[in-house]
Amino acid sequence: MLLGAIEAGGTKFICAVADKNLQLLERISLPTTTPTETLAAVFAFFEPHQLDALAIGSFGPIDVNEVSPTYGSILATPKIAWQQFDLLGTLKRHFQIPIAFTTDVNAAAFGELKRGAARGKHSCVYLTVGTGIGGGVVMNDQLLHGFSHPEMGHILVKHHPDDAFAGVCPYHGDCLEGLAAGPAIAARFQQAATTLPPEHEAWDIEAFYLAQAAVNYTLTLSPEKIIFGGGVMKQSQLYPKMRHYFNELMNGYVNTPPLDQYLVYCELGDDAGITGALLLAKETLV
Amino acid sequence: MLLGAIEAGGTKFICAVADKNLQLLERISLPTTTPTETLAAVFAFFEPHQLDALAIGSFGPIDVNEVSPTYGSILATPKIAWQQFDLLGTLKRHFQIPIAFTTDVNAAAFGELKRGAARGKHSCVYLTVGTGIGGGVVMNDQLLHGFSHPEMGHILVKHHPDDAFAGVCPYHGDCLEGLAAGPAIAARFQQAATTLPPEHEAWDIEAFYLAQAAVNYTLTLSPEKIIFGGGVMKQSQLYPKMRHYFNELMNGYVNTPPLDQYLVYCELGDDAGITGALLLAKETLV
Repeated sequence: MLLGAIEAGGTKFICAVADKNLQLLERISLPTTTPTETLAAVFAFFEPHQLDALAIGSFGPIDVNEVSPTYGSILATPKIAWQQFDLLGTLKRHFQIPIAFTTDVNAAAFGELKRGAARGKHSCVYLTVGTGIGGGVVMNDQLLHGFSHPEMGHILVKHHPDDAFAGVCPYHGDCLEGLAAGPAIAARFQQAATTLPPEHEAWDIEAFYLAQAAVNYTLTLSPEKIIFGGGVMKQSQLYPKMRHYFNELMNGYVNTPPLDQYLVYCELGDDAGITGALLLAKETLV
Repeated sequence: MLLGAIEAGGTKFICAVADKNLQLLERISLPTTTPTETLAAVFAFFEPHQLDALAIGSFGPIDVNEVSPTYGSILATPKIAWQQFDLLGTLKRHFQIPIAFTTDVNAAAFGELKRGAARGKHSCVYLTVGTGIGGGVVMNDQLLHGFSHPEMGHILVKHHPDDAFAGVCPYHGDCLEGLAAGPAIAARFQQAATTLPPEHEAWDIEAFYLAQAAVNYTLTLSPEKIIFGGGVMKQSQLYPKMRHYFNELMNGYVNTPPLDQYLVYCELGDDAGITGALLLAKETLV
């Protein structure tokens, strides 16, 4: 059995081929240029392999609603060449095999659930905090899809008492992404987030917003774990602060798992998405 | 095939027996007193019927985690006599049949999905706004259970610009329930919510909080419908205001279904919970 996976990102496409045990046979990283050019390179990579199934975890927003006329397309992305591009349809015309289609973060959540920080669980949230904030969800061992996919990086939040920053989200101003993604941290203190020392108040404010988001995800979904990835979440001083604020904001209302096992850094790192996609490809054959 | 259902509420237990087409054969409403007394009356009601399956939609918080040692119990409720009461276990010892166990609002969400406002869909949120705010969720045709069940009435929200009210939630102060349940409306304006005229500013503030909650649920779950029930939601002036604020707060970021079909009043009214429980009983036999 040969499995294929594509992690379609805004700057690069990662493609992989693995056997049924997820042993990697080949892997490549391709630049995201135009759909025609990038897909030609994708097809060339998979050409020597007789795939049995494929899965795509794509940058979004994408249409994951199987009954929608634009199912499988990329929607209103700032990457003009990819707007309305029928990614799934194009792949389906090339490969006559089962193909799973979801967001990059849903694929990462699935990867962390099956092989990473949420191994042995049936549900988790995966939240990546970097240049933006994106979230994926698995509940009851299934990807969370409704009329669309989660866009939980943009939930509305109340301000940290000492933070009057107006936020940088072009849609919402001070939504979670507008207040807590890397560019928000940089804009608030007028220096790159990575240059701020661990004891800087920036991390206290950041932890407050992430804790508040985690409280709301907990109250809405009750996932067995909330797993963090992305550049900002490499700042290890965030975790104790975040758990502190989580306790303060939740105030004992819901008995979560112990917080040092509940609000955790990812285990698969940059491999979460491609691993999850390989596992989703395998699922299509069950 | 005979189906039984119990909607276990804080003031009354509704019990029903129906055939496989959900034709009601018998129904009763019993006062919620002590577990011993109330359960004796429940057993007496079901006594003449040879049930094939049963389902309970219970007031909460309850333990819905099947691998937990207290699975099936009522947890930290203000109703002292019911704290830690093993509701599911007590019923399982009496009836040797399949028994489904979830929250009253999850059962109502399931009822609205299968027979009410979300007929033909695969996902919905059901939010009841009355003396408290409680939410149930169905995604991919399944009840949403993780380490626990949703408690989405308590999500944290930002204040309406003109509302400095501190909120009345004993746990969180100004969470959604603390700012927008019936007692919060009454406390803010020092008169019962039902006595406030439709043009009173109270409804504008109320609509803002409910819209904000709906935005956050949408971004986290992307349900195909958000269905409102409970006493406060009988105020029909809320719906246009709520849809207006939803548009303003979401600002076009996610393409939801048309709002007059997306943010809607329930169809089953007070029957949502018991109908959902009967359907959940039937599901155990599939």
